Amino acid sequence: MKIGREQNRTPIFTTLKNHWEGRPVSGHVPGHKYGKVFPVEGQAYFEGILKIDVTEITGLDDLHDPEEMIKEAQELAANLYGSEATYFLVNGSTVGNLAMILATCKRGSRVLVQRNCHKSILNGLELAGAEPVFLSCGYDAGVGVSISVSKNEVEIALQTIDNICAVILTNPSYYGISIELEEIIKMIHEKDIPILMDEAHGAHFVLGDPFPVSALALGADVVVHSAHKTLPAMTMGSFLHIQGNLVNKESVAYYLRMLQSSSPSYPIMASLDLARYYLACCLDNNGVPAIVRDAFCIREELKKLDGITVVVPENTRLVMDPLKVVIRSTRGLSGFDLQKILEKEGIFVELADALNVLIILPLSVKRVKHDMIERIERALRHSGKSSGEQLLQVQVPPFPVTISQLAIPLRDQQKHEAVVCRIEDSVGSVSAESVIPYPPGIPVLLKGELITKPVVDYILQLKKLGARFQGNDLLKSNYISIYKKEKE
Amino acid sequence: MKIGREQNRTPIFTTLKNHWEGRPVSGHVPGHKYGKVFPVEGQAYFEGILKIDVTEITGLDDLHDPEEMIKEAQELAANLYGSEATYFLVNGSTVGNLAMILATCKRGSRVLVQRNCHKSILNGLELAGAEPVFLSCGYDAGVGVSISVSKNEVEIALQTIDNICAVILTNPSYYGISIELEEIIKMIHEKDIPILMDEAHGAHFVLGDPFPVSALALGADVVVHSAHKTLPAMTMGSFLHIQGNLVNKESVAYYLRMLQSSSPSYPIMASLDLARYYLACCLDNNGVPAIVRDAFCIREELKKLDGITVVVPENTRLVMDPLKVVIRSTRGLSGFDLQKILEKEGIFVELADALNVLIILPLSVKRVKHDMIERIERALRHSGKSSGEQLLQVQVPPFPVTISQLAIPLRDQQKHEAVVCRIEDSVGSVSAESVIPYPPGIPVLLKGELITKPVVDYILQLKKLGARFQGNDLLKSNYISIYKKEKE
Repeated sequence: MKIGREQNRTPIFTTLKNHWEGRPVSGHVPGHKYGKVFPVEGQAYFEGILKIDVTEITGLDDLHDPEEMIKEAQELAANLYGSEATYFLVNGSTVGNLAMILATCKRGSRVLVQRNCHKSILNGLELAGAEPVFLSCGYDAGVGVSISVSKNEVEIALQTIDNICAVILTNPSYYGISIELEEIIKMIHEKDIPILMDEAHGAHFVLGDPFPVSALALGADVVVHSAHKTLPAMTMGSFLHIQGNLVNKESVAYYLRMLQSSSPSYPIMASLDLARYYLACCLDNNGVPAIVRDAFCIREELKKLDGITVVVPENTRLVMDPLKVVIRSTRGLSGFDLQKILEKEGIFVELADALNVLIILPLSVKRVKHDMIERIERALRHSGKSSGEQLLQVQVPPFPVTISQLAIPLRDQQKHEAVVCRIEDSVGSVSAESVIPYPPGIPVLLKGELITKPVVDYILQLKKLGARFQGNDLLKSNYISIYKKEKE
Repeated sequence: MKIGREQNRTPIFTTLKNHWEGRPVSGHVPGHKYGKVFPVEGQAYFEGILKIDVTEITGLDDLHDPEEMIKEAQELAANLYGSEATYFLVNGSTVGNLAMILATCKRGSRVLVQRNCHKSILNGLELAGAEPVFLSCGYDAGVGVSISVSKNEVEIALQTIDNICAVILTNPSYYGISIELEEIIKMIHEKDIPILMDEAHGAHFVLGDPFPVSALALGADVVVHSAHKTLPAMTMGSFLHIQGNLVNKESVAYYLRMLQSSSPSYPIMASLDLARYYLACCLDNNGVPAIVRDAFCIREELKKLDGITVVVPENTRLVMDPLKVVIRSTRGLSGFDLQKILEKEGIFVELADALNVLIILPLSVKRVKHDMIERIERALRHSGKSSGEQLLQVQVPPFPVTISQLAIPLRDQQKHEAVVCRIEDSVGSVSAESVIPYPPGIPVLLKGELITKPVVDYILQLKKLGARFQGNDLLKSNYISIYKKEKE
């Protein structure tokens, strides 16, 4: 694929570089003054970047009102991705998810939401005071993880629920598993309902086959990409793409201005500019076959190793991102234990769950491939068998199998009093906190949801296996916050 | 002042450095893999920092649930500042302001707010659906800028308004001018009302006399500091300090988790750690006299230059931050024109207004002082007189002189239809947008406020003089969004 010559430009990075090379004197923030005022201990790491860690001075544009280099960089990204407009985000996909929800859902609006969404989606719904109706998620037994929604369930929801202001979906999953979206998107658009897509793990899908198809190419109205996850962007750098006339662009921009720092980070913006350029170069130089071949090689080498297996979806209609590799112990180790063994050899993976370990490969594996395989092999050689048979005890709890609503709606929750109880005694109560193992940051239990026995068992198992939870302080001592029953 | 030896530690930075030096293999995000996958063009600037641009892997703690290095670094900051708890922010003071408001103000809660606050305060009130009652701000004729509230006005407000859930103040001003807060804070605390303080420009006040006294030392409940503004932290790095029992710490933490990226930037966190360490070293080595002496020297040298004057507050009870220097043309140039002249010599200032230019000095001026004075002198030598007498035309409009509420409350605004009209014809209507010149990001007109003739004249003058506005796209063609009158 040949792309336009203008994609060779990097307007933000180049302007910042030129600004620095012009030997500016800083009478402005930040206080490190291009790195001149900084602890000597940190200079080796910070010296380079602080030269371009600037603020909204003349010539350096303004993310919240772009007219110059930032506008051009965002347009280049929009051109590459085929969106009508692309916004650079400096507060991660989190802020993209919050803004797309606030821009489309008013207080009390009914919105269809895939149950296994990222916590930022739930936070956006809470901020907006919307009324979510949850779509149950699919499940793939091959990898043992939940996936996106089924066409059938979306169809039923659209037929039985009125006044839906938006449908919020998440695809691919954290594990890189992608469902077929084309018909689902078509069905929703036939009702003129906007589709808000958390495609955090798909910023590189624009590379084309054999990567899954992006929801953007299929017409989703807003698509959020964590550029930092799979592209060479700095952490917190993301894209929000928008197209069509179902979502008001000015409203999305309004909430992005509201929720992002009024002093956004120029290094992060410059890294988004360079990441888009990197992608464009891959396409221009026909780099995709090499990326895919290298990733395939790593999978094949991992398959040959004793002690692990590479798992893939059972359902062949699902598309697996070639850059995601899910491995599992063949010696009875949990994912958490396998992770620990790898870490002893300095291999840090993206996440572990009860069963698996997820490895994310980069767009160029040349400089990491050899070292990775060699060290994984060493790690496996040194590890014995599992001490117990804990793997067999792990049961993933069934998520609600039908379309469901919260037992206490978001907008009523402030009126209810929360009390603390032992997690074992919480079955039948309504949870006053979301329980979110992180990563992947997908809630096991939602604030306002009825607590069931399988969910309690699952949480206790996750704790025992060493999973980490964000913000669930009570859980550390086996307590949970629930809504008091007396109050209606 | 001698500080504890533990202040020599930099737990986040040191742990990240050690992690990198352990030659880790990345099977995780971000996609640049410690900088190994990155466009060659950007490497000189990004190479160093990408070695520590990591994610929540084992050993690197989690900002949203800190237990290890981040917890320790936050505690060191709390110790230095004398707060009960300090949170590291990676989305600027913006997110600190939003979180402290959401944690204290429920829908419909009445809250006292200083009128000349940063837009993030107004955004927080809108998100919370609170009912602000605005306190008019003071004015200093010497610098020609608004300052914080008067004791008298706070007293009247506390006597006449019931059920106040919080008082939100801003001090010092963007120009570094600080009011005496002690009695105001005491008066508010006598009523057990929490004080939320946007002290964005005061992160260095902990250095002590002659810097203004921090509201934290005076007992304010929540204090937000833009560490990146005056300390050597990366842009978007801020602190939120909390103390006392009037504000629920867990609630503040809840909203910070909600509003900040679930993949927060480690370089920004490490820079906050180093910035706190830098401050501690200043205190430990008795560095304050040198900082103050250097800043004084710069002011004196600037005073000697032809064509400008250094302005100071008229009211001697106001304390001016020694690191803020406000200069003004003596040749009839507007602040905006003076800014342009300086920029031609490569001196970039923090902001210009109709009258002034604001220069922010760093904590160590050694490496910038000589170059700055020399270039400013050159700039002034080369500049002629002003072509017109535009300065005389500039009139700062009177802000409301009494306690005031919005003509259309925040929580009702969604129900009203917005229409567009020429700004000249908008007098007497209610504005459907806030008009915010940036910098300083302090609204001239609030969404929901009645539009008056002096405000329209001021906006038109600012436009003519070259001020920039964030998100006021209509204004570029002299239009403004107002609420339709027919609807009640």
